[in-house]
Amino acid sequence: MLIRVINPNTTEAMTKLIGESASLAAGPDVLVEAVTPAMGPASIESHYDEALSVPGVLAEIAAGENDGAAGFVIACFGDPGLDAARERATGPVLGIAEAAMRAASSLGRAFSVVTTLDRSVGRTWELIDRYGVRSTCRGVRACEIPVLDLESDLSAPARVLAECLAARDDDGADVIVLGCAGMGDLCADLTAELGLPVIDGVSVATGMVAALARLGLRTTNRGEYAPPPPKGYTGLLRDFGA
Amino acid sequence: MLIRVINPNTTEAMTKLIGESASLAAGPDVLVEAVTPAMGPASIESHYDEALSVPGVLAEIAAGENDGAAGFVIACFGDPGLDAARERATGPVLGIAEAAMRAASSLGRAFSVVTTLDRSVGRTWELIDRYGVRSTCRGVRACEIPVLDLESDLSAPARVLAECLAARDDDGADVIVLGCAGMGDLCADLTAELGLPVIDGVSVATGMVAALARLGLRTTNRGEYAPPPPKGYTGLLRDFGA
Amino acid sequence: MLIRVINPNTTEAMTKLIGESASLAAGPDVLVEAVTPAMGPASIESHYDEALSVPGVLAEIAAGENDGAAGFVIACFGDPGLDAARERATGPVLGIAEAAMRAASSLGRAFSVVTTLDRSVGRTWELIDRYGVRSTCRGVRACEIPVLDLESDLSAPARVLAECLAARDDDGADVIVLGCAGMGDLCADLTAELGLPVIDGVSVATGMVAALARLGLRTTNRGEYAPPPPKGYTGLLRDFGA
Amino acid sequence: MLIRVINPNTTEAMTKLIGESASLAAGPDVLVEAVTPAMGPASIESHYDEALSVPGVLAEIAAGENDGAAGFVIACFGDPGLDAARERATGPVLGIAEAAMRAASSLGRAFSVVTTLDRSVGRTWELIDRYGVRSTCRGVRACEIPVLDLESDLSAPARVLAECLAARDDDGADVIVLGCAGMGDLCADLTAELGLPVIDGVSVATGMVAALARLGLRTTNRGEYAPPPPKGYTGLLRDFGA
Amino acid sequence: MLIRVINPNTTEAMTKLIGESASLAAGPDVLVEAVTPAMGPASIESHYDEALSVPGVLAEIAAGENDGAAGFVIACFGDPGLDAARERATGPVLGIAEAAMRAASSLGRAFSVVTTLDRSVGRTWELIDRYGVRSTCRGVRACEIPVLDLESDLSAPARVLAECLAARDDDGADVIVLGCAGMGDLCADLTAELGLPVIDGVSVATGMVAALARLGLRTTNRGEYAPPPPKGYTGLLRDFGA
Amino acid sequence: MLIRVINPNTTEAMTKLIGESASLAAGPDVLVEAVTPAMGPASIESHYDEALSVPGVLAEIAAGENDGAAGFVIACFGDPGLDAARERATGPVLGIAEAAMRAASSLGRAFSVVTTLDRSVGRTWELIDRYGVRSTCRGVRACEIPVLDLESDLSAPARVLAECLAARDDDGADVIVLGCAGMGDLCADLTAELGLPVIDGVSVATGMVAALARLGLRTTNRGEYAPPPPKGYTGLLRDFGA
Repeated sequence: MLIRVINPNTTEAMTKLIGESASLAAGPDVLVEAVTPAMGPASIESHYDEALSVPGVLAEIAAGENDGAAGFVIACFGDPGLDAARERATGPVLGIAEAAMRAASSLGRAFSVVTTLDRSVGRTWELIDRYGVRSTCRGVRACEIPVLDLESDLSAPARVLAECLAARDDDGADVIVLGCAGMGDLCADLTAELGLPVIDGVSVATGMVAALARLGLRTTNRGEYAPPPPKGYTGLLRDFGA
Repeated sequence: MLIRVINPNTTEAMTKLIGESASLAAGPDVLVEAVTPAMGPASIESHYDEALSVPGVLAEIAAGENDGAAGFVIACFGDPGLDAARERATGPVLGIAEAAMRAASSLGRAFSVVTTLDRSVGRTWELIDRYGVRSTCRGVRACEIPVLDLESDLSAPARVLAECLAARDDDGADVIVLGCAGMGDLCADLTAELGLPVIDGVSVATGMVAALARLGLRTTNRGEYAPPPPKGYTGLLRDFGA
Repeated sequence: MLIRVINPNTTEAMTKLIGESASLAAGPDVLVEAVTPAMGPASIESHYDEALSVPGVLAEIAAGENDGAAGFVIACFGDPGLDAARERATGPVLGIAEAAMRAASSLGRAFSVVTTLDRSVGRTWELIDRYGVRSTCRGVRACEIPVLDLESDLSAPARVLAECLAARDDDGADVIVLGCAGMGDLCADLTAELGLPVIDGVSVATGMVAALARLGLRTTNRGEYAPPPPKGYTGLLRDFGA
Repeated sequence: MLIRVINPNTTEAMTKLIGESASLAAGPDVLVEAVTPAMGPASIESHYDEALSVPGVLAEIAAGENDGAAGFVIACFGDPGLDAARERATGPVLGIAEAAMRAASSLGRAFSVVTTLDRSVGRTWELIDRYGVRSTCRGVRACEIPVLDLESDLSAPARVLAECLAARDDDGADVIVLGCAGMGDLCADLTAELGLPVIDGVSVATGMVAALARLGLRTTNRGEYAPPPPKGYTGLLRDFGA
Repeated sequence: MLIRVINPNTTEAMTKLIGESASLAAGPDVLVEAVTPAMGPASIESHYDEALSVPGVLAEIAAGENDGAAGFVIACFGDPGLDAARERATGPVLGIAEAAMRAASSLGRAFSVVTTLDRSVGRTWELIDRYGVRSTCRGVRACEIPVLDLESDLSAPARVLAECLAARDDDGADVIVLGCAGMGDLCADLTAELGLPVIDGVSVATGMVAALARLGLRTTNRGEYAPPPPKGYTGLLRDFGA
Repeated sequence: MLIRVINPNTTEAMTKLIGESASLAAGPDVLVEAVTPAMGPASIESHYDEALSVPGVLAEIAAGENDGAAGFVIACFGDPGLDAARERATGPVLGIAEAAMRAASSLGRAFSVVTTLDRSVGRTWELIDRYGVRSTCRGVRACEIPVLDLESDLSAPARVLAECLAARDDDGADVIVLGCAGMGDLCADLTAELGLPVIDGVSVATGMVAALARLGLRTTNRGEYAPPPPKGYTGLLRDFGA
């Protein structure tokens, strides 16, 4: 069974990290393929970036359909393009915020999200409401580390840890959700330091897609998620049309 | 004062209709400019179309900023790209669903939305929640008329009227919100037939943007709506980068 | 087009200030008439005052109907008598809390209200819920300045500014809503000092009523806002009966 | 212990009926005094009537304070003037919608309200939300009987019963709340016919006020319900000022 | 009229205290019987304890039915077994959290709960939502005193008072709800020290059950609260079966 | 990796069916052990049954801990004892309603639950709110088939199918959630007949627990889910004490 994990930004190093995380929960019967879009922003740090990452994500969904992917993960914590992807995909499609937040609600009663930039906090609360987990969410904390500095800035792990500790000790969080796909490599160390479950959405989402795919469960093809009506597209985006 | 009204789809005939609606509430001190994006779908009838309309909308925001527009209206009932547009714009930006639903909540206690396709109903409910008007919304009804058939299909006005009547008589609606920018030309006739306020979001949104602009009120440039961090973009979308 | 702006308290100096604010967003085609009720409290600082301001407001609605007013604004941040006024009025009626809070939700993602007395904070939260803007509200701060001292107390502007700064810097507000009609004259200075949009509901509400009135939109006359059934009234209030 | 039960309308016959209902749950240690205001509408059938009933209610609160009343009931299903009354009263003040809806939520999982006029349904839903009982409310049904016709119209009992039966059999209600103080005399017969608990808010509210008063519990006098700041009042309402 | 008040834990000293509280609001026509279950935990300080207290509570409901009890109170602030008890009981059944929180919402606009252990705070918030009082709840504070130490630990009253003062002065609470049936004996002293209404749910619940019982109101016997379908039970719990 | 799936009722035939469902999504590295409690009701069809199933569930959690189970599933659609189980378990614990409802929210936009008895519908709505999926739930339908008749009553499959069809065609559901662990064997046929995803919570929950366990994720052991304080238990339940 092939599961395609899409990194919505165009930075290859992050795709590699995502692929490694994705394999951890999938099970021995799953092949994970992590892919990078051919168009869009180098990182996603605004509504603007998020909106402009979606064409690239949708192109990767289309390519995965051609390759027979059994399901998809969208590996950015804003879950960009999730509804549109579900219209186009046959198998299940999960966002990593969706998977991580819901898992956190099953493992504790008070999770906190630790994310990169303060300007993403509002979007995170929007997703907390969309996924119906507000009553188990204790807060959202930002480290003020740009996404691509997570790997290059040597102080990043310590700053992420500091916010996790504040979430645990000041806010009373009993589970931590990592609010960026680029934090997945910190997960094991943070778990050890914090003594709390620390959730990387990439791995949990992939495990969940695998479970659904084993059962033959697919995204519904009726109603709002039915395939979009074909029509003409214009200009740069013309190839997205029928 | 120049207000730019953006039709998110690429159909010029609809842009013309939108421009006419937009002028009605703006006031004598306002110049309305209705524009069509250079890329994207011919009509918006799915999450897929909506997501892929956003690059074109954002390009029109950028162009309007260069032209000194005092404010913007996004003239599709899904309010595509609203948050991203606010990051990029200096003046106020309103969506037509936002403006229409809130006006409806001030004119009555039980509005219904009458829209084109059933598959858009879920997105409409999402916006009803985003704009905080669920307690005054009685329902959302679809006519099952594709967007571009609103003009060409001679039976369209009667079918829209039939749903409005059902909203009034069966659901108890006391105000009607038209759920598509392409229905603006039906507004006067529907008002006369129904004896209820019938709201076209294009005109109301333009009037509201004009009111805000007269006061010098702009979209905030702090926090989540601060300008997006500049960065490289790749592939087809490279020109959206810094 | 005549728009009647009603000051629900009986202090003439405040009516004058309200009239000046109201004209700013209305547009060149609008004549604003600011009026003071013939009965009621000198200022509104409790549920008791608010309830007892409503007879005076309703008398001014009735008088405005006779004068052919195209619409009404109720210019106290508790929006007293709004539903009853809508039953009696033909044109649109907006409250200033309603208009200000909704505009704030379009200009930013995190507004705070700065109001006069702490005992009004609960009523403000009630309106935040009524108008469906809780998800974009960061908080409500009180200056502990009695309403009528806003003009006479020389320290008032500095104290209002201090709360606005706290809202911005401590609470993360990106837009400020002024929580009293008597603060309208501070709006320009506060905007300059804060670098944020500062919203006076009197002006925004008047601009919105003008926009609706240009479109011929009226308060619905069906259902809950239909004219009240005529009947006898007794005692002091006998003239409010049929 | 004296409990004052205030009929917010000025119809004496209804006050008498209210007094009889109020005594049923109070307990042998309670004296119930039912009173009629000296000003206001003959019945309450609109937001307009409700707003204009409040001055009369507040005058009766003040008189009851002078008489040493241990607590108050506001006996109209719109709970008019409840917050203002609490600012003025020393003892507990309950509205009948408040008491009835909460009791219904303790006796079943699915109550319905049966009220007089359809135009009151929206106000009832507002109170359902205020009292936090939406999850146990199955619906609100109107009989379209004007309030004062409840006594004079011989068909009234049968029409009320018909709506109760529809609530039970069509909507699945397991408890009925009577949505008008003037329906209290129907309570016993309806209970017998329906085989369900039927709640008259006048009696339940009085029993609850008595229970609170026995414990020495009073309305808080801090914060939002502290006594209103004294000030001048003008015109017809001048006697409500300090 | 006999009202049975059930202490869900097995500590007799606490049953005695509960019985004394329960009598205060009941009225002169009520006989209160406080009982201790024959099985279960010595105190309730976890979900585990709460779940395992329910068989004992249900056995006491059954015994009370045999004795002709007119109604029941479940005297633990987690309201354990409330729905199951209502299925089995004929008369009304109230939980003490339910009664206390709703009374608090009628006496003020901002109550706080002061409870024993921090680990119970989440359950308390769940009940705040169940009873629909979130908008009037200012917070939940824990004293970190084990339930059975409330009587034996001489520092307990001072520590409870300290949290009440913090609720009043730091959180702005205007009413205090005692979050444990074992705090009822502190109620009078706390009221005197705080100058706020302090609510013990045991007494308020008993008063409310008495009021309902005087009216002949019973738990509905239709729908979800109809008697449970009889069936076989196995093992230790076999006597709970039909 | 061993996952223990607990059937909360005491009917062995149902345990066998549950074990078969549970294996489908778990993955090749998982051993599923389905167990039946030694005490409690033969089926769960009321709040009473549900409450009295919890001691048996908790005993099976304790036994599973001794056996080194990596995680647990509680296989009754009321998710009985979930919080208490999480206090006692080391590994993750999922309820089948929790898993099924959340999976349904990822596969469509409008799921319906089809369950056994109408009297369980209220509990189902409670769980819909707990798991935050109300906005994607279209309704809950009951077949009025007692739980144990699902296997023995030959008409059961057709009646379940009929409700599923009504959910799809009348209510607009795009995904079906089976509201009873005893319906798992119908899942494949229903999927084929309906052309919609049909979700059995037993299998999805087991797949999700396996995914979490592969990552080493456990139930948090801090805060509300920390192990319960040890204490004495009395009577029949004495062995549940420390």
